[in-house]
Parts: sequence; structure tokens; C-alpha cells
Amino acid sequence: MLADTFSLAFGFTATATACGLKPNGALDMALIAADAPCSAAGLFTTNRVKAAPVIYDQGVLATNAASIRAVVVNAGNANACTGPQGVANCRAMAEMTAERLGCRAEQVLVLSTGVIGRQLDMAKVAQGIASLTGPGAQRGAGAAARAIMTTDTRPKVAARTIGVSGKTITIAGMCKGAGMIHPNMATMLAIVTTDAQASPAILNRALRYAADRSFNRVSVDGDTSTNDTLLLLASGASGISVSDTDARDGLAFEQFTATLTEVCIDLAKQIARDGEGATRLVEITVRGAADEQQAHQVANAIARSPLVKTAIHGNDPNWGRIVCAAGYSGAAIDPDRLALWFGPPSSPIHLVANGLPLDADLSAASALLRQDPVFITLDLGLGNAHTTIWTCDFSKEYVEINAHYTT
Amino acid sequence: MLADTFSLAFGFTATATACGLKPNGALDMALIAADAPCSAAGLFTTNRVKAAPVIYDQGVLATNAASIRAVVVNAGNANACTGPQGVANCRAMAEMTAERLGCRAEQVLVLSTGVIGRQLDMAKVAQGIASLTGPGAQRGAGAAARAIMTTDTRPKVAARTIGVSGKTITIAGMCKGAGMIHPNMATMLAIVTTDAQASPAILNRALRYAADRSFNRVSVDGDTSTNDTLLLLASGASGISVSDTDARDGLAFEQFTATLTEVCIDLAKQIARDGEGATRLVEITVRGAADEQQAHQVANAIARSPLVKTAIHGNDPNWGRIVCAAGYSGAAIDPDRLALWFGPPSSPIHLVANGLPLDADLSAASALLRQDPVFITLDLGLGNAHTTIWTCDFSKEYVEINAHYTT
Repeated sequence: MLADTFSLAFGFTATATACGLKPNGALDMALIAADAPCSAAGLFTTNRVKAAPVIYDQGVLATNAASIRAVVVNAGNANACTGPQGVANCRAMAEMTAERLGCRAEQVLVLSTGVIGRQLDMAKVAQGIASLTGPGAQRGAGAAARAIMTTDTRPKVAARTIGVSGKTITIAGMCKGAGMIHPNMATMLAIVTTDAQASPAILNRALRYAADRSFNRVSVDGDTSTNDTLLLLASGASGISVSDTDARDGLAFEQFTATLTEVCIDLAKQIARDGEGATRLVEITVRGAADEQQAHQVANAIARSPLVKTAIHGNDPNWGRIVCAAGYSGAAIDPDRLALWFGPPSSPIHLVANGLPLDADLSAASALLRQDPVFITLDLGLGNAHTTIWTCDFSKEYVEINAHYTT
Repeated sequence: MLADTFSLAFGFTATATACGLKPNGALDMALIAADAPCSAAGLFTTNRVKAAPVIYDQGVLATNAASIRAVVVNAGNANACTGPQGVANCRAMAEMTAERLGCRAEQVLVLSTGVIGRQLDMAKVAQGIASLTGPGAQRGAGAAARAIMTTDTRPKVAARTIGVSGKTITIAGMCKGAGMIHPNMATMLAIVTTDAQASPAILNRALRYAADRSFNRVSVDGDTSTNDTLLLLASGASGISVSDTDARDGLAFEQFTATLTEVCIDLAKQIARDGEGATRLVEITVRGAADEQQAHQVANAIARSPLVKTAIHGNDPNWGRIVCAAGYSGAAIDPDRLALWFGPPSSPIHLVANGLPLDADLSAASALLRQDPVFITLDLGLGNAHTTIWTCDFSKEYVEINAHYTT
């Protein structure tokens, strides 16, 4: 039980199985089940081409967010661009899962990730769902986190606890995502569970806050996928409720949301570090902006630039590309006020002041690009707003992985 | 003289030399000189971080567009992020060139391309300008087109002629650009000459029209550079003038502009085909759009997607990535109306109809991705607007080239 608290809260169980959707026979289906009906909230891709499970889950949460029992997930097939048949397959997955769990289909959420444009092999899926709820399933959130991987090289889990009145609340999450990663959201699935008690409305507000500061601040390749989904489920098993009006005997909304944000940032950074072909995490901070939106625009342009990301990969302190990306970001910058540092906040190297290069030690700057994480700080010199986003370097392996994904 | 008509119009001469700005000793400076004062127009980068020569040339054209005598170009150093010293170096380049040509400094335009953030070695530049105007210079537009290359693998020239009243007008251009290529404009320098006679105002209008349909429709990596410049110089040596009111004995504005556009599209496609690490040109047509702006948004998202570009590189008919990019482009698309083809208009393979995959021959589709150029056509099913843009595939060599550009 203890191991699972690192990626699952009390009141939930997780299982995983291999049903053959991944050709290599690896784990490819997962089930997160709640012991009793729980509250839920979800955030979904902003892509106008939405995968069937995204459309389906939005419908479920619109009517049943207060009584969710399970999330069933498959990897290996995104069930995207699959039309009415794709949505029917979602419903069938929910029905089969509900039948095994003894609940209603409307209480089951469905997630898919993998290749776009192919119908699910429902015979395999049916076998998988039977196995997930039978004695042969692998148990634990660790196995579930492995099952939802696609091009990920490692499972991604994170958890935090909060002590309240001698009791403990857990917020625990798992996610997957390595390519097609760009705000807002990514080809990313994340499931966060908590044993706090909270209404769907409160979960929704907390989730939006946390996502804006975590998953919406990672970029691997600038591609926003068709399947992105972030779910938050609250079992209430801790006996502690989250309140936004009265925190006596309960947990204040602000504290719950802050801890949820920590969990989401932890997961989001794991996604960036495990970006396809990536060798290190890159943390980009833009400060001195007129407002947060402009800070985000600049940070996003830098994080998205293939020229910046390849330079980092080559340990090349080619800072001109960072300044250039800031220049085309669309934000109102003043080139003569730019300042740039490489390295951690504790011991950075100052490369640019007032838009002009300083006489910096470029071999030391190159050494900082070899570290993991890489820190880049750009000051626009215009105001007090700031933001931090996460990306990764860009290697030949990204091309290798993505040149041959379906064939 | 004949050879030069393919990349230079009558009334102009071109020379090139190596002054040591490129470490490998290759040609790195070029001079396009007009026999007499000529009309000129220019378009410049939209990046807010503008290189010194961009700022300098905008000043020159604001006051002297009717009496330009020369364009002096260096490669190997972009003279960007170089502050007041950088602008002073531009002025010095213009003064030295003017002294050798016997004109005023205000009649000389300056272009630079290469690494960002380093001051020009003015001793080498001075030697180069002396050589460009002396007996040792290599003559001809072909040599000049080679001198302005950076990571380009081949020089890029294009020309068209128009017959008018038994006389001939030439419109001829040269350009460079392989990385940091994205609308609007690129780390791209292009110089187009014509022996038509035209006012700066007419040249400006024609140039904007042509650029919107050519250089503003190529993308290599989504990075808009600090140095992009497109110049159009008109000598009048043909004796034919361009008129937008009266084409008797002259050339109609529309015909001049259409031919100028052809030359610019020819050059722009050469840039996309020679994109860093590229192995083939990709022509993306989006049609059936509600308006041209939306068509452009969709085409641009597809052209910019690393996932689409790596799939093309791997001959992988992973069309889901194209539909996905359309979905996140920001344009108002209806997923259920999308249709997609690979291959030339004469014999395409139909892959998607009404947003759903057809039972297409995927090995034949893969074979079409091996061809050069690759044609992709997406119909949004919403209206009659359309656009075509050009990009390239995305290979490991792009990463190789850009991981080690300054070091």
C-alpha cells in the first residue's frame, strides 16, 4: 500500500495488463478504479481535432462529475480521427469496464494514446478489460504508469502529502507524454488522484490553476495533440474536505491547490525531461516583462525554437538565437534592455546586458549547457512580470523516433 | 554578359571576393553596383531585434530610394546584437564602398548574414571592399550568389524576361537562406535587379505583392531571423518604364509584378529545398478555406510541425499528424469536413475524406513522400479560399548543422 501512495491516493486502486495493442507485448492497458463514487474534473486538448475519448469524457464529466468510478486507459492507439465508430468504441470500453466493476457506464472515463487514424481492435481491448479486472492483472500505480507510456522512456509519477488536524491528505499523479508536446496540453495523459473530499466545481478550479502553471508550460516540439487529457479524481477517503469558504476542520482551497500545482509541475517537468530524443531538461525563465502574458509569449518562442534547442544539445552558447526568438515572439520587447544569463540562479554566467554581449567566458557557458537541468534566464527590462517554462534539447534521436512512428 | 542575365539585369555589375570572414577562405563578400543611380525598394525582417544593416538600410531607403548606386554584402557575421558600434560599422562599409565607386555613402545599401552577436572585423571588411572594386575580384552574379551563402549548399539565382515593344526587360534575382527561415521573411538575403524603369513607390508596391506570395510563404524551422532583407533595384537600362496608369510604350504594373512574383517564388522554393539538412522540397496547398488568412494559418501550422516534417523525411504516411496540425492551427476548421491527398495534382492519392481515413494504398502513399517535391493538399471543406506554401523535410542533419554553428 505504501508504494502506491507515491502515485495513487487512498480510495483508489490501479491495475495494468498487456492485451496486444503494443506490438512488442508490453503493458498497454491500465485501470484506475475508485472504491466508491468520487468527484472528478478534467481538462482537455485545445486542438479542434479532438480524439473520440476526449469528446466522450467531456460528455461524461458534464453530467456525472460527482459520481465517477473508474478511468480505463489504452496505449498504442489514440482513437483519433475515427469518427462515430471511435466514439462507439469509447462507449463500449466504458460499458465493459462498468460491467466488470458493477457500476454504470456513465461512471467510467476513457483515455487513449498512440497512433492517430486507426480503429481500436476491440477484441483485444475486451480481453484487456477482462484481464484488468481479473486475478492476472499487475497491481499498483507503477504498473499503470508503465502501461500508458508510448515513446516515453520511463514511467512518470509524483506525489505530495498535506497534514491536516492529525490526518494526512495525499495528492498523487501519473502521466505520459514525450512527443506532440506543446501548450496548451500535449499528447499527454495525466491522472491525479486525491483522498481529499471536494466537489467537482472546486476540483475544476484547482485543476485549471495547477495546469496553467505546469502542463501548460511544457513544450517538446510545438505540436498540440488530439488526445491531451488531465483528470483529477477525489475519493474523500482521508475524511478531510477542501473548502473555499471555511477551512475549520478542513483544508483551505489555496493550500490544496498549491500542493496540486506542485504535483503537476513535478509531472510536467518529467515530461519535458523525457521529451523524444531529449538528453536534458531546460528551464527557461523570462522576467522583467510588462505582464505575464508577454513573459509567456517570449518564453514560449524560445522553448519552441529548433535553433535554440539544437544549440543547447550541442553545448553551443549561441545566445543570439535566444535573443532572436525573443524578437520574433510577438511580445513588445526593447532590444536595448535585454539581459541574459545561463546557469542556476545561485551561480549564473551573465552573457548579455543592454542587448549587447558581455565579455563572458564562453567555455564556462558551454559547460553550463552540459548540465541537467539547463537554466536560461532572460530579463526584458520592462516590468515585474515573470514566468518559467520547461522544454528539452533537440537531438538527432527526435528525428529518428519520429521519422518512423507508424511504419 | 549573357550568363549574368540569368541573375542580374542590365545596368548592374556584380563582383565577389574572400576577405577571411568565413574561416574556410570561401568567397564572403559581394558587391552589386549600378552603372548609374537607380530606384530601389526593400522589405525587412519583422523581428523586433533588428540587425544593424536592417536599421541602417531602412534609413537609407527612407531618404535615397531614388538614387541607389550599390549593395555591399558580407557573409560570416550577421552584425546583429552589436549596438551602436554595429551601426557605425555599417556606415563605414557604405563609406568605403562609396569612395571606391565615386558616389555618396547615402547611395550604398549594406547587407550582412552569419553569426549573431559579434562585431565585424573591419580590417578584413576594408580589405574585402578594396578587393571587390579592384582587378582581383571575381566577376558575375554567380560568384556574388556564392559569396552570400552561409549554411546554404548551393547558390540560388532566378530570372525571367518580358518582351515589350520589341525590347526586353529582365528581372533577375539572387538569394541566400537555409536556416532561421520562417515567414515573415527569413535569415534570408535576396537582391532582385531589373532594367525596367520604375519609381521607388511602384517598386515598393510590386515588391510587397511578390513577397507575400513567395518569401513570406517558406518555412524551414519556424525561426524568423534578425537580418532578413529583400531588395529590388531598377536601373531603367532597358528604356522601358513600368506604369500603373498608362501602359502605352511601357509595361503594365500588373505584368511587371506578376513576373517579379514568379522570380521571387522561384528563389523562395530554392530556399525551402536547400533548407538545412533538407532532402526535398515540400509544397503544401490548403484549399476550401473560409478565407485566405485561415488557409495560411493551417498551411503554416503544417509546414512548421516537426512531427509532419520528420514523418516526410522517413517516407512515413502518418497523415494523422497533418490533421492534428490543422486542428491546433487556430483556424476554425470542422474535423468532419477534412479531405487530404498526397502527390501531384495530376495523380494524387486520396487518404482522408470527411475527416476519416480511406482505405488508401499506404505503400504507394509512402512512395509519393520519397519524391521531390512532395505535394500535400488539404481541403477544409468550408469555402473557396486557398494558399500554397513551401517547406522541406526535417532530418538528423538539421540537428547536426545547428548543434555546432558558432563553436
